[in-house]
Amino acid sequence: MMLKFLCHFCTDTFPADPMAPFCPQCREPLLVELPSAGRRIHSSGPPLERFMEFLPLSGAYESLSLGEGDSPLLPLIRLQHKFELPSVWAKDEMLNPTGSFKDRGTVVAVHRAKDSGVRKIGTVSTGNMGASTAAYGARAGMQVFVLAKEDTPREKLLSAGVHGAHLVQIRGDYGELFLKSYRVGSRHGIYFMNSTDPFRIEGYKIIGFEIYEQLRPRLPHYIFVPVSSGGHLIGLMKAFIELSRAGIIPSLPVFIGVQAQGCSPIAQAFSSGRARVSRVAAPGSVAQSINNPSPPGGNLLLHMLREHDGAVTAVTDEEILTAQRILAREEGLFCLPASATVLAGMLKIRDEGRFRPDDRVVLVITGSGFKNIPVLEHQALSLHSATPASLDALIASL
Amino acid sequence: MMLKFLCHFCTDTFPADPMAPFCPQCREPLLVELPSAGRRIHSSGPPLERFMEFLPLSGAYESLSLGEGDSPLLPLIRLQHKFELPSVWAKDEMLNPTGSFKDRGTVVAVHRAKDSGVRKIGTVSTGNMGASTAAYGARAGMQVFVLAKEDTPREKLLSAGVHGAHLVQIRGDYGELFLKSYRVGSRHGIYFMNSTDPFRIEGYKIIGFEIYEQLRPRLPHYIFVPVSSGGHLIGLMKAFIELSRAGIIPSLPVFIGVQAQGCSPIAQAFSSGRARVSRVAAPGSVAQSINNPSPPGGNLLLHMLREHDGAVTAVTDEEILTAQRILAREEGLFCLPASATVLAGMLKIRDEGRFRPDDRVVLVITGSGFKNIPVLEHQALSLHSATPASLDALIASL
Repeated sequence: MMLKFLCHFCTDTFPADPMAPFCPQCREPLLVELPSAGRRIHSSGPPLERFMEFLPLSGAYESLSLGEGDSPLLPLIRLQHKFELPSVWAKDEMLNPTGSFKDRGTVVAVHRAKDSGVRKIGTVSTGNMGASTAAYGARAGMQVFVLAKEDTPREKLLSAGVHGAHLVQIRGDYGELFLKSYRVGSRHGIYFMNSTDPFRIEGYKIIGFEIYEQLRPRLPHYIFVPVSSGGHLIGLMKAFIELSRAGIIPSLPVFIGVQAQGCSPIAQAFSSGRARVSRVAAPGSVAQSINNPSPPGGNLLLHMLREHDGAVTAVTDEEILTAQRILAREEGLFCLPASATVLAGMLKIRDEGRFRPDDRVVLVITGSGFKNIPVLEHQALSLHSATPASLDALIASL
Repeated sequence: MMLKFLCHFCTDTFPADPMAPFCPQCREPLLVELPSAGRRIHSSGPPLERFMEFLPLSGAYESLSLGEGDSPLLPLIRLQHKFELPSVWAKDEMLNPTGSFKDRGTVVAVHRAKDSGVRKIGTVSTGNMGASTAAYGARAGMQVFVLAKEDTPREKLLSAGVHGAHLVQIRGDYGELFLKSYRVGSRHGIYFMNSTDPFRIEGYKIIGFEIYEQLRPRLPHYIFVPVSSGGHLIGLMKAFIELSRAGIIPSLPVFIGVQAQGCSPIAQAFSSGRARVSRVAAPGSVAQSINNPSPPGGNLLLHMLREHDGAVTAVTDEEILTAQRILAREEGLFCLPASATVLAGMLKIRDEGRFRPDDRVVLVITGSGFKNIPVLEHQALSLHSATPASLDALIASL
């Protein structure tokens, strides 16, 4: 079978070339087109094997895996009671090899690289995606190129650099670098698996398939997910759309994307009824890893959300830090500020009175808080000092 | 059934009181005593359920779990070929909720706290164990106390503090704080689940059970593990000893503990044939999380290793950093320097010509490198800068 990419807007199909993942006509991201009818989920094996019928791969290679996926779906009982919420679960994507959901996409894209005989891969990111791509590239014995902005602090380069990736700092902004990467890639045979790469998005589908599997026979009513480029939420929606087309589920959950107010181009376009995302001039929020002023998947995501009754909302830095603290203190989940947006978003929807008591809500917790310890300076600590003599009295007072 | 603690030296038993985990006669750590005969492993469910017959718990509570365990056992094929090693696997304990093997012990100790009606827990640690205890305590809704040295940098307190733990800095060294914690604990009803806590050690057993399960029907010949207090390796050995007593396996693997030369009290005692560990006067190595100058489980570990033909070896900081780089570059595994000691130790044993070609070796990778990014300043990066015009030439040259 010849693998195809589809443009959601032109509805044209193209050969599935990972080095050309945008529609040559409308410049929107292409998605892998796989007929869903008759496909099924297998009952055992690691995630890539269980969901192989829904993936554009020729097989799963143990030598490329770092044990990604099968992340826990944790019931958040204490949170639910304390904040009078419907039933809530955390899909804990922090429990991936490099500490974020990016690994789900990277492993599928690296499989695709191997299937197509590509030995050089790359990405434009100095954050979670850079570290993930460098780790999987190393595991596969591939050469890895990470393009970064000129002013990226050295400390942000280290976790990709430790895997031996070539780190290249270039003058220019993120949007420019993003486009440049494809030009460089096709010239030098480097597969740039960036945020909206079609195979990366196929990997994000697996998070959705697992949520289905873990809640079965029940279905979630709502799924909340942080939104940056749009790729992650597009993947989650594609998973449930394909399950529905395969006749496995009768209806889709409501998808709610959450952005930080300081950089919320998709939420702004959504709430003002626009079809296209506008670039944010001066982006900035505490949720660094989703500060994307010009999200390449923005228009596609807007279109898909409107088609399926989803929404995008935005939350303030204060709401984000409060949510980060609540998740850590009530449930033991220490996540990045970007990941905490989902709880902030959920509390907002609760305040709007949208939940029914028997709703089932899944919060996708995307990345580990250990990746940004300094941000904790914003959080109050219960910090005390004592002498050996005063310790007893102190403990008794706490 | 009345649960008992056993002193390995006096061979006396005592009531299993988590607040009194040392032998009142010889001051050595007590271990949980459970008869192994007739016990079996269940075939499904999360780890605590599968291995429940080997654990001193009344049941597994989903509300206390953060999805710990079932960590991958990754074949390290590239490493094996490049360094002419026997078959090697990484047991990747970085894939635990707070990024280290400590979670295995904490979840069992917190179950024990719940079983005994204790609502306050604590630990002496500002590193992996502090973060783990604070996270699980938060999940369980317990009050958590973390005792730290007066001079602990604020940054090391943050990842426990975010969970709302009370952080108390006290004058005194680690050894003194360790002893003080039990006095404070019994006075205020706080269960201090420190490094050699008997229930924590029961949790570490599960890593061993999973290794058995993942390699079955084959058995490992060697298991390498970093050694600090001794608790982790004691737990791994106890697992295989119990599998052997239950008639499930015919023989034990060879256990090799690895310390950093800059702080290697157990390795020193082992190689000089002494029965007791001496305190290291000026400890210091790049492997911060195992710099334990006076390991409370040292004497017990020495005794067990000699009884079962194991060994403890020590490796230099340079060997540790080289091993950290190799794991990251060849296999995509970015671990703490402390965790990289196992590969350094394995390369040392290889150089001594001890392996046979058909040996199966497991390296337990204990903690995530994301917990200590600054140490990467010791590693060389492939860092370049380019202008948009010079980028092509640069990429071609790499």
